[in-house]
Order: sequence, then structure tokens, then C-alpha cells
Amino acid sequence: MRPEEPVRRLAELAVTVGANLQRGQIITILAETGHEEMVRAIAEQAYRRGARFVDPWYFDPYVKRARIEHADADTLEFVPNWHGFRTLERGNQRCAHVTVAGVVDPHVFDGLDPARLGRDLLPRVEESGTVVGARTSNWTIVPYPTVRWARQVFPGLADDEALERLWDEIAHVCRLDEDDPVAAWQQRLDATEAAAARLNERVFDALHFEGPGTDLTIGLLPTSRWANASFVTVDGVRHLANIPTEEVFTTPDPQRTEGAVTATKPLIFSDGSRVDGLRVRFEGGRAVAVDADSGADNLRARCARDEGGSRLGEVALVDREGRIGPLGTLFQNTLLDENAASHIALGHGFPFAVANEDVGRVNRSGVHEDFMVGADDVTVTGITRAGERVTVLRGGAWQI
Amino acid sequence: MRPEEPVRRLAELAVTVGANLQRGQIITILAETGHEEMVRAIAEQAYRRGARFVDPWYFDPYVKRARIEHADADTLEFVPNWHGFRTLERGNQRCAHVTVAGVVDPHVFDGLDPARLGRDLLPRVEESGTVVGARTSNWTIVPYPTVRWARQVFPGLADDEALERLWDEIAHVCRLDEDDPVAAWQQRLDATEAAAARLNERVFDALHFEGPGTDLTIGLLPTSRWANASFVTVDGVRHLANIPTEEVFTTPDPQRTEGAVTATKPLIFSDGSRVDGLRVRFEGGRAVAVDADSGADNLRARCARDEGGSRLGEVALVDREGRIGPLGTLFQNTLLDENAASHIALGHGFPFAVANEDVGRVNRSGVHEDFMVGADDVTVTGITRAGERVTVLRGGAWQI
Repeated sequence: MRPEEPVRRLAELAVTVGANLQRGQIITILAETGHEEMVRAIAEQAYRRGARFVDPWYFDPYVKRARIEHADADTLEFVPNWHGFRTLERGNQRCAHVTVAGVVDPHVFDGLDPARLGRDLLPRVEESGTVVGARTSNWTIVPYPTVRWARQVFPGLADDEALERLWDEIAHVCRLDEDDPVAAWQQRLDATEAAAARLNERVFDALHFEGPGTDLTIGLLPTSRWANASFVTVDGVRHLANIPTEEVFTTPDPQRTEGAVTATKPLIFSDGSRVDGLRVRFEGGRAVAVDADSGADNLRARCARDEGGSRLGEVALVDREGRIGPLGTLFQNTLLDENAASHIALGHGFPFAVANEDVGRVNRSGVHEDFMVGADDVTVTGITRAGERVTVLRGGAWQI
Repeated sequence: MRPEEPVRRLAELAVTVGANLQRGQIITILAETGHEEMVRAIAEQAYRRGARFVDPWYFDPYVKRARIEHADADTLEFVPNWHGFRTLERGNQRCAHVTVAGVVDPHVFDGLDPARLGRDLLPRVEESGTVVGARTSNWTIVPYPTVRWARQVFPGLADDEALERLWDEIAHVCRLDEDDPVAAWQQRLDATEAAAARLNERVFDALHFEGPGTDLTIGLLPTSRWANASFVTVDGVRHLANIPTEEVFTTPDPQRTEGAVTATKPLIFSDGSRVDGLRVRFEGGRAVAVDADSGADNLRARCARDEGGSRLGEVALVDREGRIGPLGTLFQNTLLDENAASHIALGHGFPFAVANEDVGRVNRSGVHEDFMVGADDVTVTGITRAGERVTVLRGGAWQI
């Protein structure tokens, strides 16, 4: 199942249901060297649907490796201003956007100093949070299976079998194995929208995560609203921020997270570098201790980038009724793994997830790093302003 | 001769003798998908030599193909403003730059309408002429052999033999087969500098090209100065604009080209598309008739882009004492072929090739399209202001 057809269908899904490209729009693409087949399929679908211009940026992780190995330490945070300009113009000019998320080489950063790695956020551009927050771009993130990724996920299989299996699973979680994937997506989005509505009815003041190594209370803002990843731009263009997506999320109070949390899956950054066995302790909303079996310095460097880098910008709940969780596959890719488990993100929050009076309280940062904290043995309890405790998720199933 | 070593040596030459990267500089790279190995080698050399940031832009010709096939005709000249911004910032921020010139797929645009192809100049960005003219960036263009290119140049050989032969010839013309390539380059640059000095002594008013299908007179500006491709930026950084380079060039009077010229090799644009059997007739400096065996509409569309697109910006003389001409290989790549034969360029000229009083007369355009007009059977004669005729090049040899 590696031939042309599934790539075309995945690209079509990205351009239609995902980014929902409008005729006459510029569409930017963030991809890595190694994603050419997918980028070209997206480009063809986009031009067929009236794109004014398709502008791919191929990020090269091997060039980044050369930087981390050889560049002066005090230059590692530097990014030429044209990257920020392009990112902000993407919003100003109301462009569509697709990010291709496919592991090109899980070993590209092996042996490098995590503290140096963490100073270079690319391919994340700091200004991207501003554009997401302003809702001026209709965007999506889609997976693209590669052979090295397949080898990592299914190490027991021969390369071609591993790639076929990865394609099968990704086609399944993207609902491409349905006769009508668009209808299948609408059905699932109706379900997560209903879950978000039930959460919004309760108006929780905080969430309490309890599980092995986890006893974490995340305060919410008075108007924090839960929603699924079916977004609408300021111009009314509906788009699906992730394909696949199974989450409901909101933006929390960056001042009121307390306690300890143990990540339930590896934290994989946008460049593919990672933190294994992550444990974080929060006090007064701040991550005051970041520890890990490996890669802690990578996250520490990102947290230290700015004041908001140590505070939460997102909390998301994921049930086990989606398609990723039941597979039991650890994809080692944030797009897929974060849609199989509840997660939180250090860094930039979502101003559109609160009412106007709370926008100024939403966390701001140049970073946004998701990591998974949910699992079958992690219970999530909502706490109302009156102090009432309501079980929300247990064993991966909604309790409300 | 395909392994790592020659790639590293070619990259080192590009970063040192070519762009002459200075510590702390940003270095931009223009390359195509398929040039990753060379881009990564350049990045490593650059970071080892103190680059502040290496910023490759991988142009994808297959994405361009999708555009030419499917996009609305009236959008084909559009380029998002961030490409121009990045290009101008390259000058403003005194960046180094390397363009990798290697044919990735000579058939990528087969079957497309040349008139549509010619409306999309990318990967050329119009603003690049401004940066070259302002001498604010130290830049170079270097070849990178690919297997499809080798197959095109040596169609009788098996792929691996063709690639090895292309590597051998490119290593030879880049002087990488010398014990001391830097010294070999200096020796050749001394020779072309001496040729330029002899031309400058004569202060020709015009050049006359005569050969099969060619009877062309190119008027020069009063202060048109001849030089080789060893450039110096406004900050005093010497760089070699092409590797390899065998030419001496100047910028002509855009108002005074008369007659007919027949190209002696195919015209290959920066995107790899081409014009075969090109014939151009000039009147009053303007290209008033563009004909060809194939691809004429591609060049016509480029000429029609702006007023300067139909006038000359460059005339360059190439002897047969360099290394490319004697090989007799038609590389079907402008970087190499234009350094084997005298050539002219429609479009943007070089303000630094004239004295201040003539800068306003130099041709300006968003395009710059080189094509070869020299050959052993094309004689170049200089005409002085007094009307004296002096033979300059005959049979590929200097006569002055």
C-alpha cells in the first residue's frame, strides 16, 4: 500500500478537510527533506483547487545537525528575520498552510548535546504562535509515512512490511479506509464537540491528574472554553488543525499549575529530537524542576527561552474512543501520539479559547511543546469553583 | 569518484574560494530538491568556518511543474513578497550566498507550454539583480553532478560510468584535480584579468560578432569596464561569482545593439527549462524578433516581463584556453556552458561595471538570461570610437 494512490488521497484530505484551501489563496507548506513525494502531491491538489501559489519550505535536519555540532554556542538561538517575516505574512495575507509531520531520520541528532539542541527551535518559528492565536490562517498538520519512521515504529518487521503497516495504520487513523472519509471525520468531530460541550457546562476551575508519578492540578481561567480541533478563522474558514485529531483542549491559567507530572510517552520536538522519561514539577504555574532519563537539557533550554516557556499554554483531553489509542502503537511522533493520550503544552497558549476579558492572562511564549500525560491508569478529575470533584476521564473513558 | 571526498572538496571550494565566507556571516543557499548531499556538505564547511546561520532554500521543480500545469494563467507571474524580502535582506545584512547548479531532471518540464513556463521566473527572484548590482553579498555558483544530469550529458554510458565521468570533468574544470586548486585558480584569474586589462586599454565603442547566422553589433557604454568574475563587495570581500569561471565580461549600452545572432548552444534557464536553436534580431538595442526551433515562447514571455527584458545587460568573452571549452562537452547547464563560449544576457546589467556617470544607463530588469553566441567559427571584432576595427577573438584565441 505504498504506491501513488494513498499519497494522493492523504494530500487531498490535507488540502480539503484539513487546510480547507480557498480559491486564490497562497498555501505555505512546512516539510522536511525526505517529504518531497507528499509535498508534490499537496502542490498538485492545491493548484488543481485554485491555489494562487504553493510555497514549500523544506527544512533540512542534517543542516541543523551540522549547526548543533559546529556553530558557536551563542549563535544557536539566532534565526534570520525573513523566517519571522514569512510566518507573519502568512497571517497578514490570509494564507492556507500545511505542515507535513513524518519522521525522516529518528537518529539524525544522536550523540548531540541536548542543551545545544534545545537552543535551536527550528523548524518551529517563534512567530507561528502569533498567527495561530490571531486565527488568520487556515492550517493543518498531516502525517507522511517514511521508511525510517516505519522501521522505528515496527522494529521487528522488514522495511517494506514496516512501511506497509505504517501506511495501513495512518490510513486507518486518518479515516482514509472509509468509503466517505469526510463523513467519518464529521462523525468523530461531532463526538469530540459533544465532549467539549459537556466540559463547558461544568465550568471547571481546575483539573486534577492522578496516576503513577503524577499528582498535578492545572488551574483554568474563568472563561477557558473547551473545543475540538475544528477551527474557524477570523474570515469564517473552517479547518482541521490536525489530521488525525481526537482531542478536546483549552488554554489554562498559566499561574495556577501545582504538583508533579510524569510523561506517559516520549516528548518529541518538531525537529525530531526527544526527551525520554520526562518528569516535571510545577509551583505557582512555573515548571521549577525538569528531569528526564535523557534529553532533559533540551527541554530546559526551550523553557528558559522566555518567561512563558516554563508555564502551560494548553491542556488537552483525549479519550480512548478515537482510532489512535486502541491501536496501541507508539508512533514516536507528536501529531499521532498526542491524539492518543491527554497532553499538556509548555509555552504559547490560545487567546481564542477564552473570552475577551481573559485574553491578557493567556500564556505567551516563543515555544509550544506538547507532551503526553494521559494513560489508562491516569484519572482526570474536574474541580468546580465550589470545590466539588467530578471524575472526567477514567480508564480512557469519559465519566461525564 | 562519486564518494564523499569530492563532494566535501567541492563544498570547501564553494565556501572558501567561491563565496569566501567571513566568520559571523549568514550564508544563504539556493539549491534544488536532489542537491541535499551538496547542501549538507556546504553547511558543514560553513559552520566549521564560523557561519552564524546556514539558510538553504530547496526549490522544487516538480512543484513548479504542478503550477505550470494547473494554475490560472494570470497567477503565473506571482511570487509571495517574502521571497523578495529574503533576497533584499541578504544584501542588507551582508550575507554570503551559494547557488548550487546541478541538473536534477532534464525532463521535468517536458510537454508543458513554453509560454506558461516563461511567466514563472523561479527559482530566480527578481530582486537578486539588485543585490548583485549593489555588491552587498559575497556569492558564488557551483555545479553539483547528479545521475540524471550525467545521463543527459553522456547518453552512451551506463549510469554509474556517466556519473563518474561527469564528476571527473567537473573536478577538472573546477581545478580540484590540482594539488593546490587555490593556486591554480589564482593563475587562471591572473590570465583573464590580463585579458580584461588589454580590452580596457582599447576602450572599444562596440563589439562585432560574425559567424554562421550571426552578424551582431553590441554598443558599449563610454565607461564599460571589462573584468573577470573575481568580484569585491562594498565591504572589500573578494569572491568568485562562478566556479568554474573562464569569462571576462562587461555591461553594454542597452540602446545600441543591432543585427542578428544565432545561439551556439541551447539556452537553459535557471529552472532547467530550455530554448533550442535560438535566433534573435535586435533593433535599437531591443530584441524585436525571438525565434527558435523550440521553446521560443519561454524566452519571449521573459523578455515581455519588463522594458529591460528585451535589452542586453551583459556581454562576456571566453577564450578556449580555459578548461571547459577544450573538453568539447556540452554540459547543458548554463554555469558550465557559458564558461566555454562567449555569451550575452538579456535583462539586468551590472552598475559596478561602469563609472558613476554611466550607472543610470545600465539596463535594469527582473530577468537576466544568458545565452551562448561564441564558437570557434565566430569572430569577435572590437570597433573603436574612431571606427578602427581590431580583431579580438578568432578561433577561440585572443588576437589582442
